[in-house]
Amino acid sequence: MRIARYIHQGQCHWGLTDEKQVFSLASQWPSLGHGLAKDMEALHRAVKDTACTGIPVEQIQWLPPVEAHSKILCVGLNYGRHVKETGKAQAEHPSLFLRHLDSFVGHEQAIVKPAHSDQFDYEGELVVVIGREGRHIPETQAMDYVAGYTCMAENSVRDFQKHTAQVTAGKNFSCSGSLGPWIAPADVDPSTLQLTTRLNGQIVQDASLSDLIFPIPALIAYISTFCVLRPGDLIATGTPEGIGSKRTPPLFMKGGDILEISISGVGVLRTPVINEQIS
Amino acid sequence: MRIARYIHQGQCHWGLTDEKQVFSLASQWPSLGHGLAKDMEALHRAVKDTACTGIPVEQIQWLPPVEAHSKILCVGLNYGRHVKETGKAQAEHPSLFLRHLDSFVGHEQAIVKPAHSDQFDYEGELVVVIGREGRHIPETQAMDYVAGYTCMAENSVRDFQKHTAQVTAGKNFSCSGSLGPWIAPADVDPSTLQLTTRLNGQIVQDASLSDLIFPIPALIAYISTFCVLRPGDLIATGTPEGIGSKRTPPLFMKGGDILEISISGVGVLRTPVINEQIS
Repeated sequence: MRIARYIHQGQCHWGLTDEKQVFSLASQWPSLGHGLAKDMEALHRAVKDTACTGIPVEQIQWLPPVEAHSKILCVGLNYGRHVKETGKAQAEHPSLFLRHLDSFVGHEQAIVKPAHSDQFDYEGELVVVIGREGRHIPETQAMDYVAGYTCMAENSVRDFQKHTAQVTAGKNFSCSGSLGPWIAPADVDPSTLQLTTRLNGQIVQDASLSDLIFPIPALIAYISTFCVLRPGDLIATGTPEGIGSKRTPPLFMKGGDILEISISGVGVLRTPVINEQIS
Repeated sequence: MRIARYIHQGQCHWGLTDEKQVFSLASQWPSLGHGLAKDMEALHRAVKDTACTGIPVEQIQWLPPVEAHSKILCVGLNYGRHVKETGKAQAEHPSLFLRHLDSFVGHEQAIVKPAHSDQFDYEGELVVVIGREGRHIPETQAMDYVAGYTCMAENSVRDFQKHTAQVTAGKNFSCSGSLGPWIAPADVDPSTLQLTTRLNGQIVQDASLSDLIFPIPALIAYISTFCVLRPGDLIATGTPEGIGSKRTPPLFMKGGDILEISISGVGVLRTPVINEQIS
């Protein structure tokens, strides 16, 4: 059972899903809480307690599993072989940037290749979902703050990313990335997970989460040094080697492509690509 | 009359203020709309239409005049003399980063000097408040999308800002910046405004908004190339020369200091500084 956010009959819901049906929960994310996401029994009880009958997933529109006010912190350059392919030096601290929710769509929703760029690159990532409020969290306690995991297509518009030293513009094109399909509870050891990105069915990224330069506890400890982490905040852990801009010839996305991010034990985030039409 | 956001008797409100009293509005920000912020008559009508009597400002707690889901886009290196004091080259495009609302407090609320750094620097800035949704906005029409202006203490933790090439960590310490005191309607020519930062009553920054390298229409045009701008989104236009870290000796903030950002025609944002206590 996983935690989903979706639209049904014009209303946004948080709910639970067995991947075939969704079950609406009355609660908003913060009150879903830490225990619920970690405890499968509590998930099942919550479904039993809802008055709703399950709704087939064909009848919903998936949303990114995050509230609009939550922080979306993204880590750059966090896999050794990816750092190598970019030619950059490995840093002493995690390299971080923020994305706004406007830059994401949900599972099965289309991402938009910008009209102003032909350098629309894929980046598959594992995302940590925070379940408990904390500041100055020691590495040794960090995993207690994790509610679950989701997938991100943290796609980048490479020419805009390089306009200045700050990557913000290239990382925040409206509807350029996707998030989902749902939140899988944190009942797995993240270092055992495998991340695979497919473009039109071909594997373009394939890496083990054990390869992270800054593992999840180190990220939570560093980020919580400067800001409070709250339930529902997201930390995207970085993309592995295989990005399109470092291939010869480069491989960029265009309308008609299908991008899929698979993470074992989490799910498959499926994202068609359309071309932007400027009216 | 200005637009304010505040807490009164435990409830958050959007309201209007004559700087002595606040008048609650039933509306949330998006429905305050573009016209309202620009049209003083509409502001006065809105006050007349509220059932509330005015509440003295002494009885409220000011909040940053922004919703938690709105984008807070900040421009770096946007005054010629500030670029010179940093020793950096002038860029072809605006240098942008995002701040999360958790990094700000409202007018008269205390900002927090981090326990982990002694390099807590001030940065006074003019902020543009977007009043109308738009994408791909031409420079010539950009000012039609501006609802008003507010002030920001876009304070930075210099050592964390330099941990990597991305400034995110140093720009997003919880409660390190302030925003407010309110939104002044866009009925002034922003290039005629003067920005003055005072630390403990001494002027430390003093600049004309006519000195911006990328003026407001250029910022709106560039940002809306990559993302949709929505009512309530904020663009902080950059800080002028005079920052503490480039002085000899450096001048950083500490508990007990008082920081004030004054912008002519907008208001004075007053911010006491306290030291972080880690329990």
